[in-house]
Amino acid sequence: MADDVYRTITNRASVRRYQEREVPREIIEGLALAGQQAPFTGQMYSFIVTTDQTKRKRLAELLGALVLQAPVFMLICVDFRKLEKFIAYRGRQNQATDIGLLFLGIQDASYAGQNIVLAAEEAGLGSCFLGAAPFVADELAALFNLPERVYPLVGLVLGYPAERPSPRPRIPAKACLFWDSYHDLTEADVAEAMSVMDAGLIREGYYAKLKARIPPAAQESAGAADPVGYDKYGWSEHVSRKYGVHGGAMTSGVLEQLGRQGIHVK
Amino acid sequence: MADDVYRTITNRASVRRYQEREVPREIIEGLALAGQQAPFTGQMYSFIVTTDQTKRKRLAELLGALVLQAPVFMLICVDFRKLEKFIAYRGRQNQATDIGLLFLGIQDASYAGQNIVLAAEEAGLGSCFLGAAPFVADELAALFNLPERVYPLVGLVLGYPAERPSPRPRIPAKACLFWDSYHDLTEADVAEAMSVMDAGLIREGYYAKLKARIPPAAQESAGAADPVGYDKYGWSEHVSRKYGVHGGAMTSGVLEQLGRQGIHVK
Repeated sequence: MADDVYRTITNRASVRRYQEREVPREIIEGLALAGQQAPFTGQMYSFIVTTDQTKRKRLAELLGALVLQAPVFMLICVDFRKLEKFIAYRGRQNQATDIGLLFLGIQDASYAGQNIVLAAEEAGLGSCFLGAAPFVADELAALFNLPERVYPLVGLVLGYPAERPSPRPRIPAKACLFWDSYHDLTEADVAEAMSVMDAGLIREGYYAKLKARIPPAAQESAGAADPVGYDKYGWSEHVSRKYGVHGGAMTSGVLEQLGRQGIHVK
Repeated sequence: MADDVYRTITNRASVRRYQEREVPREIIEGLALAGQQAPFTGQMYSFIVTTDQTKRKRLAELLGALVLQAPVFMLICVDFRKLEKFIAYRGRQNQATDIGLLFLGIQDASYAGQNIVLAAEEAGLGSCFLGAAPFVADELAALFNLPERVYPLVGLVLGYPAERPSPRPRIPAKACLFWDSYHDLTEADVAEAMSVMDAGLIREGYYAKLKARIPPAAQESAGAADPVGYDKYGWSEHVSRKYGVHGGAMTSGVLEQLGRQGIHVK
């Protein structure tokens, strides 16, 4: 048995530098078909693609400058609207709760998204997910005319890579795969996991190259010196700042934005 | 460039009949590593695997008889607990809202899950997701000792297949992939999509072989004749009944179960 699939999965890394070369439309169409072939509960997804410069400038403001680096932007949406049209086709109305549907719809869209990422690798394309989409849903809904019951899940940039990064570290398998019962991580497990993550990313100069250090305090003035230099700034410091300092501002207002798209979680 | 990845993605179909043959533990460990190499925002996932007969009997009661058909069961969980230990390692506390974290954590776990599904194909294994896990979270938490901040997302059965189903139909690409703006499906689009789905699954005898017809009304007595025979029972009737008749009972109580795992969406 060929091991191309396993090699593609385990060698893949997100790409943040792209060639200007255009991606043929037929390739994008092929990726979408690969996405659709993922397992699903209700095919609750839509993919909206743009190469338009005006839209991409706006997207860069919302989701980060990487959007302008890559020639293709795809917004992967959770789409209850379509499912409900299918239910109505047989004369019924959806009875499921919206929190229940979110569990199923986010999975549908994500399984499809990962198929798209892997199919892109084989087509010679790099990709990078942009995770802030659910937190700027109002703006994305306006930009792409999303109607009620459709919610932005994640952005994905695609293009021919101008870099070939090695796969990045992950926490040790023993902190992820458990047999028969959940294993609560001890302090030693956590320390080991963080040392693996930090060493790998600092060695690559991952955050230094991206200039991606997150300010250590929400109120910090832009010019203040960071007490943690890039030589010590690894994954543990990054996630600690991302969620422990900026997590509140980043994720506030999701319930309200869901509500404005007609999705009611309470 | 080899096209094994694209072929694996587009030829894959869920398997519901398995050989009794055991799956070596090293293969499962390899699948978990493939899962971990997926893109992520916070590695917010844990995989709990069992081959234990007592646990699988209980799982069959909760998630369906298919659990006993396959030798391996994996529960993929969204794991905020681990992330919060990582954040605490650098002396901070998570500030993100739980609804925000769910959007990120369900994606993390699902990207990993789809990697596992595809890596399993290459290892000669079939698989099938069992989607009801979030709706029986109390029972799964008891069975696998899930602590607070860990929530069951989806079950996955794995094993050497005793059938080789062809890939199943999907709605037409034009109902999924949009350029520059959302396209709201017209009645004609919906009718076309449902005729593609129904024709493909009725031709395979998909629901007939599985005896998977959903009762047409919640109050229907088990013995009553179904007005829609298997020769007319396709995907559109199935999702219409699944969500339009049983969706309420299926998805009620998710908020409360989330709360009992210490996850507060409101």
